[in-house]
Amino acid sequence: MARTRVVIIGGGFGGLSAARALGGSDVEVLLIDRTNHHLFQPLLYQVATTSLAPSEITAPIRWVLRKQKNVTTLLGTVETIDRRSRAIRVVGEPDPIHYDYLVVASGTRHSYFSHPEWEKWAPGLKSIEDARRIRKRFLLAFERAEWEEDPVARAALLTFVIVGGGPTGVELAGVLPEMCKRAFRPDFRRIDTASVRVILLEGGPRILPSFPESLSERATRDLERLGVEVRLNAIVTGIDEDGVSIGADRIRSQSVFWAAGNAASPLGKALATPLERTGRVLLDPDLSVPGDQRVFVVGDLAAVPWQGEVPVPAVAPAANQMGAHAAKNILRQLRGEPTLAFRYLNKGELATIGRHKAIASLGGGKVKLTGTLAWVFWLFIHIMYLVGFRNRLSVMLQWAYNYLFWERGVRLITETEDASMSRHPATTGRTGEFERAKAGGGG
Amino acid sequence: MARTRVVIIGGGFGGLSAARALGGSDVEVLLIDRTNHHLFQPLLYQVATTSLAPSEITAPIRWVLRKQKNVTTLLGTVETIDRRSRAIRVVGEPDPIHYDYLVVASGTRHSYFSHPEWEKWAPGLKSIEDARRIRKRFLLAFERAEWEEDPVARAALLTFVIVGGGPTGVELAGVLPEMCKRAFRPDFRRIDTASVRVILLEGGPRILPSFPESLSERATRDLERLGVEVRLNAIVTGIDEDGVSIGADRIRSQSVFWAAGNAASPLGKALATPLERTGRVLLDPDLSVPGDQRVFVVGDLAAVPWQGEVPVPAVAPAANQMGAHAAKNILRQLRGEPTLAFRYLNKGELATIGRHKAIASLGGGKVKLTGTLAWVFWLFIHIMYLVGFRNRLSVMLQWAYNYLFWERGVRLITETEDASMSRHPATTGRTGEFERAKAGGGG
Repeated sequence: MARTRVVIIGGGFGGLSAARALGGSDVEVLLIDRTNHHLFQPLLYQVATTSLAPSEITAPIRWVLRKQKNVTTLLGTVETIDRRSRAIRVVGEPDPIHYDYLVVASGTRHSYFSHPEWEKWAPGLKSIEDARRIRKRFLLAFERAEWEEDPVARAALLTFVIVGGGPTGVELAGVLPEMCKRAFRPDFRRIDTASVRVILLEGGPRILPSFPESLSERATRDLERLGVEVRLNAIVTGIDEDGVSIGADRIRSQSVFWAAGNAASPLGKALATPLERTGRVLLDPDLSVPGDQRVFVVGDLAAVPWQGEVPVPAVAPAANQMGAHAAKNILRQLRGEPTLAFRYLNKGELATIGRHKAIASLGGGKVKLTGTLAWVFWLFIHIMYLVGFRNRLSVMLQWAYNYLFWERGVRLITETEDASMSRHPATTGRTGEFERAKAGGGG
Repeated sequence: MARTRVVIIGGGFGGLSAARALGGSDVEVLLIDRTNHHLFQPLLYQVATTSLAPSEITAPIRWVLRKQKNVTTLLGTVETIDRRSRAIRVVGEPDPIHYDYLVVASGTRHSYFSHPEWEKWAPGLKSIEDARRIRKRFLLAFERAEWEEDPVARAALLTFVIVGGGPTGVELAGVLPEMCKRAFRPDFRRIDTASVRVILLEGGPRILPSFPESLSERATRDLERLGVEVRLNAIVTGIDEDGVSIGADRIRSQSVFWAAGNAASPLGKALATPLERTGRVLLDPDLSVPGDQRVFVVGDLAAVPWQGEVPVPAVAPAANQMGAHAAKNILRQLRGEPTLAFRYLNKGELATIGRHKAIASLGGGKVKLTGTLAWVFWLFIHIMYLVGFRNRLSVMLQWAYNYLFWERGVRLITETEDASMSRHPATTGRTGEFERAKAGGGG
């Protein structure tokens, strides 16, 4: 008899945790991902803001799973799932791939609600490519400002707007002011990088809505002390090449970053089962698709009830727990045992605000940490959960370097990442300062 | 009176060395480069082969020159030089930029002789983007081979051909066998990465022709011991998607890398002065363009006589010396002193061959080193000349990690770098192994 085959779609936290839990068991595991690397998403904003290199927060999936000899990793994009024939199709592969059990862990993308045209002007942050794109925009804004002579245009180049006051938005906003004021300042001759404006727009009444209210307030104060303008109840109504509209209000900026809202992976739809509003898959308590205990969904794509109306949050620890739980339920079925309901263990939530400050809500808000203590805790947790010894060491050293020298080491602009940005940075008409110096005061 | 303005085109070794030599003097310096970073090209092949991260061998040019307060750095592409009006034009800038003195240090690109169509199938190695492209091809070859069932196609995927037996070609070829045999092997389930073929093609009668003959022979033996097939007098007559032709001989390979031949930057032509065969600018002994002591050319773009017929080689130390010399000659002119002829101090040449082995020719071949001693010397020199403390530390740690654990940490494939490669890796028809297992031996 052939071995039972478990196919896992996605090598993020959920998929990897399922593969590890199945490692060494008597099933054959096939993990398929669109990329060759696992990405430690909680630190992605640090790649976007020149603090860390892409390779420091990624690890090849097949390297992570090298000791799980019953796991085969393949690079490919899954396009369809057919639950009736128990098979998936991969782009470019002529034959379907059969499964006995399926774990779908394909996550989410950022969503622009009903405004996909905003993506061009306000890139989001989900993949390494996204982070490189944001980093490039951010660095090019300074390069352009250094050429720019018109003070209004220059101010627009040095205005950074972040849309969305969740952890990603807060962490992005918190890191920019000090970086501009300290790390970049000695490198420019014509502009003063300390004159940047950083604006954080949140549509709701407070930032970090998943944290206790007192911590949201503390985070707002911490951000404001750094010089970030926090605007609450600010519903974005337009984004274009020239800036952001909030109703009648207009902010001129060429650097808008999107950290508001996610949409589920389209593979949720392929399962042909009810989805909740944002496209996440409504599941039975054991994480299987209703009526089909061969198919499990884990991670950000899963909609699992938790506290009454509130679903399990889309965070890395939840994905880890779900992946392991789905694996357990598969192995239980193979032993003829009933599956178990998933119970989310909420360890807590963390967010940093610049250098030295963070907030933490542990044990469902029972323990609240702020300030330097929370920041050290944040550092520790993130180093601990990074995949691979090399990454942990490397990130620690980078952070030490950044911290001690007020520097940012990863300031690389490369050409082909984003065709729309690869033209010469200065394209608007203006009089060259050098030329004027010659013609006017001239020698 | 306005200050004298020196414009430097290019932030490689030559341009940077000129800017540093002019730092603190009474001239105003403007350095223009197409990228925002200085690249330590001697280690670029290590980025291409997953040993180092792009950010470890680059440094922002404006950061490198932050202490030279009279130097302004601008990101831009120079399109024309007009020596009569003493001005250059930058793409997208409406006004010309005037210079009193000009230092052209725009280097070379790889040249495919009269076969530009080969570039698509055999990428060269000059920029960070080039290195990422080669790294991606290299990693995708293994990913594709893991899907591939046809043994002939699989063998073609695991055949790596390097065209050109200069230092870059030799270093690329030397690093591949051990990486495939050790670092990658535990990560794959279907292919044996130790079965790779690495072929080095050299058109001339020996590899490393600029080294003494005994060292070329030693390097050939070292490479062959590692398992590299070295083919001399092998003139490539065709490269396409399926492999390389050497006359009637044909090597099937999907991974061909180009390390043969450079062509000068097109800015050489813009100077409207005689060029030598490969497009390098023929200069007066003081490094100025004949008849125009306002314009200097340094680095790989400069054709300067050295030992009779042999010009100064296109290597980093020569570019460094030329940059500093051109700066000195500009300052001498400002003091009313005559310019001095450039004298190249040949410190020596180095090349590594895999792990533990290198060759070095010092003092014009008077001292020859081989084996581990030369390798340690190579390590030391390369760390010493890297720009920036952070890069030196980071590269040292990466190397220690790679060496101790036989690992390669930077194995990142990202999507948009190379559109032609971003489609699904497996595109040719074949029967899925998983499917066959099901249909044939099936459960």
